[in-house]
Amino acid sequence: MRKPARLWGCILNRYLSSNNKEFYSLLSVKNILANEHTEEKIAVQGWVKALRNMKTNVFFDIDDGSCVNKLQVVLSKNRKPHNLTFGSSVKVEGVIQPNPQNIGKPELKADNVEVVGPCDIEKGYPFAPRKSYSADYIRQFLHMRSRTSTFASLLRIRHSASLAVHNFFDSKGFLLVHTPILTSNDCEGAGEVFRVNPHNENLLVEMMKLGVAKDEAFFDTKAFLTVSGQLHAECISRGISKVYTFGPTFRAENSRSRLHLSEFYMIEPEIAFVDDLNEILILMEDFVKSLTTSLMDISGEDIEFLYKRHESRQMEEISKILRNPFITMTYDEAFSVICKHAHKFKSIPRKEEGLNKEQELFLVEQNGGSPVFIINWPKEMKPFYMKEMESDSDKVLAVDLLAPGIGELCGGSLRESDPTELTRRLQTLGLEQQMKWYTEMRQFGNVPTGGFGMGFERFLQMLLPIPSIKDVIPFPRWAHNCRM
Amino acid sequence: MRKPARLWGCILNRYLSSNNKEFYSLLSVKNILANEHTEEKIAVQGWVKALRNMKTNVFFDIDDGSCVNKLQVVLSKNRKPHNLTFGSSVKVEGVIQPNPQNIGKPELKADNVEVVGPCDIEKGYPFAPRKSYSADYIRQFLHMRSRTSTFASLLRIRHSASLAVHNFFDSKGFLLVHTPILTSNDCEGAGEVFRVNPHNENLLVEMMKLGVAKDEAFFDTKAFLTVSGQLHAECISRGISKVYTFGPTFRAENSRSRLHLSEFYMIEPEIAFVDDLNEILILMEDFVKSLTTSLMDISGEDIEFLYKRHESRQMEEISKILRNPFITMTYDEAFSVICKHAHKFKSIPRKEEGLNKEQELFLVEQNGGSPVFIINWPKEMKPFYMKEMESDSDKVLAVDLLAPGIGELCGGSLRESDPTELTRRLQTLGLEQQMKWYTEMRQFGNVPTGGFGMGFERFLQMLLPIPSIKDVIPFPRWAHNCRM
Repeated sequence: MRKPARLWGCILNRYLSSNNKEFYSLLSVKNILANEHTEEKIAVQGWVKALRNMKTNVFFDIDDGSCVNKLQVVLSKNRKPHNLTFGSSVKVEGVIQPNPQNIGKPELKADNVEVVGPCDIEKGYPFAPRKSYSADYIRQFLHMRSRTSTFASLLRIRHSASLAVHNFFDSKGFLLVHTPILTSNDCEGAGEVFRVNPHNENLLVEMMKLGVAKDEAFFDTKAFLTVSGQLHAECISRGISKVYTFGPTFRAENSRSRLHLSEFYMIEPEIAFVDDLNEILILMEDFVKSLTTSLMDISGEDIEFLYKRHESRQMEEISKILRNPFITMTYDEAFSVICKHAHKFKSIPRKEEGLNKEQELFLVEQNGGSPVFIINWPKEMKPFYMKEMESDSDKVLAVDLLAPGIGELCGGSLRESDPTELTRRLQTLGLEQQMKWYTEMRQFGNVPTGGFGMGFERFLQMLLPIPSIKDVIPFPRWAHNCRM
Repeated sequence: MRKPARLWGCILNRYLSSNNKEFYSLLSVKNILANEHTEEKIAVQGWVKALRNMKTNVFFDIDDGSCVNKLQVVLSKNRKPHNLTFGSSVKVEGVIQPNPQNIGKPELKADNVEVVGPCDIEKGYPFAPRKSYSADYIRQFLHMRSRTSTFASLLRIRHSASLAVHNFFDSKGFLLVHTPILTSNDCEGAGEVFRVNPHNENLLVEMMKLGVAKDEAFFDTKAFLTVSGQLHAECISRGISKVYTFGPTFRAENSRSRLHLSEFYMIEPEIAFVDDLNEILILMEDFVKSLTTSLMDISGEDIEFLYKRHESRQMEEISKILRNPFITMTYDEAFSVICKHAHKFKSIPRKEEGLNKEQELFLVEQNGGSPVFIINWPKEMKPFYMKEMESDSDKVLAVDLLAPGIGELCGGSLRESDPTELTRRLQTLGLEQQMKWYTEMRQFGNVPTGGFGMGFERFLQMLLPIPSIKDVIPFPRWAHNCRM
């Protein structure tokens, strides 16, 4: 590419005008709105929103996805291209001037508007101007969701939240570990895991070895999609004391609830040299509050925009997450509270069944909408790797964090570090051989570890007025749905 | 947890001494070495390395994984616990003092050392003191690799590299998009994709619907593991102009090469309003150089450590990546160069076969070890979605970046944006129905887009003296291997 091209660069940040004579600075809408550019010649590219025909001028907003606010463009009517409509993509050259209708805001007085891609609503574009649509409707058009203001805001918030997660842990000396998606362990999710195999049957035949079943020929073992990075994070934390994972996890559940997906993101910190559950609680509370505060700071405008659109919830509710220390109850205490109010629930509370969603939300509501830690859980409700309480061997040192709107947001525990005790438990589960590495790593320079997992989408649901988990992830997958 | 616990906190950063009387600051080795703490009472936790018994004192290094350097501890011999050995995990209380052997460096004069977990090498700990091991040997102990200095350095570099990727794109206004791992498209990897299904057969039976095959019952369609996030990133870029993905991708290939894995990480930016391949080259070069520079800055000590351990490569070679602008050749030009030197290669060069690894590395070597862009590729070598050159319809506007030590590091292109042309191509592939969304999103406010993908592990291999891709990822998966 040695020839000088007509430079329409997102990257080059300069643009040779349509008459091939002048260079304009190519800027994002975010940059234009955030900085002083009055009287500057600029070019901008994006999609047309809110087109208004006036007597001598045409007004429209231009949106390039860079921020929640749009840039108003004013164009003399005689320069309006015939196919300039709502939804079309455009390149605009012009001069920034103060917006007379909106003091302190800029507008772009266009010299030239080029329609890059027209948008004929009659031909089936699903989003008409000045209409708002239900999430269920918008979700039918996964491949065009980023064109809606609501979903674009969500994507920006999700981006900022992802970075805030990394920054939180990095600043506290935690190392990101990419735990594997493919794993030969199915111990945690038994019956709810996805199995993985090459699509090409011939490859399996070609790779077969003596003594290995055909459907295990690719990896010489059954391979599954991970349900949690914890066990692998534990490995690494036994050499690097503070680690976390942040990645996709999977459940093969036939669920259509607003809180479950087949593919979702989990954040799982693990720390070594921890022998007090309280430390897990402190980290969890710090993380949830820091993440919330960061997002209110970085993505405040997008969050506000979503709350304006969805009046079902009040933005002030977020302050309940931040205001007070999270309270702590034991499982037994929580169950007593539930029993006292037993008449309020759809089903009779049963201690051996744990807490259902209705009861979880009730406990949070009882606490004024502020999150609640539930600690010291009955052993039989929790996975094999949790540490027993010294004072009550029927209980484990586990914690669930219940949060407004969603119920369980995080789950954590201290891990059993005694290899003999773990071997005993794995034997009863028939997993002793498969999980040999899990006990073996506790035999040399053993340390107590602990950690928790937080559902990333659940966090976004807690923070935002978006009821369904399907609308806080770009491409949701659930039972009977894997579109695109 | 209302009872006051003995605070051994990673989180709380304070520690009540073993005699329950004094509080020590609990610090990481990194913190102790980076800041002035002389005369301070501190506590530290980690694993014992390099134990030396002297006349009156015992010296050892303590390593908590927080940085490449270790903290020297000096302990009076009469206070040495009997089971203080190489590899054991310890908690140490003491006072920081200047290290008399190493001017300017601190050492910890221990008041007390508690062995948390002993390490008896006789019982099978795979790493003996003062020995260095081959990568193949260490890789047999995936669950304990983080205890080796080499792999701990790699993990810290990988962490820093991940954050540097996010920071690079964030600073340039790109939005992170979590493209899906599960997808119903298999179009790019045909025959090399993994198929996904619930492990529980009964669930499939339960979920069956009329007209849907049993092995498609979970999602009502075949589901695969993604081979690239590009097509989904394209969707989002058609509303938010600059996006990127960074996540795991999968190939069901029966390969044992040092450059291939079944599960690996890809970084894929996609930008809208791009009609010049040059912009993709500029972004790619900027990204590779920025990432390299950031890592030399943030992880310089770890990188230096690895180069000291592995003398097969010289650290100065990194400067070849940074020094000059990457040169650009067309595929035709590159092939002419290859032909001129045909006698040097194992096999006869054939233009229709593309470049093999030997030829790729040769082109880089010819360029003095500096990366090389190869542009304008024969259409039949590249996927269906690439844009044809106007001047030569047998070529596409594609680019591969060849890099020292590894060959192909990045691949990118402009995407065909004409829905009619794409429909024609998809028809010949029999994918018209399955990929309807891909053409449909080009019908309304269409824009030209382009982008590239970079293999994250390949980048680490280019930067570091680590020959095998299996040693730059925490839990490698490849043909016949999915341990843990």
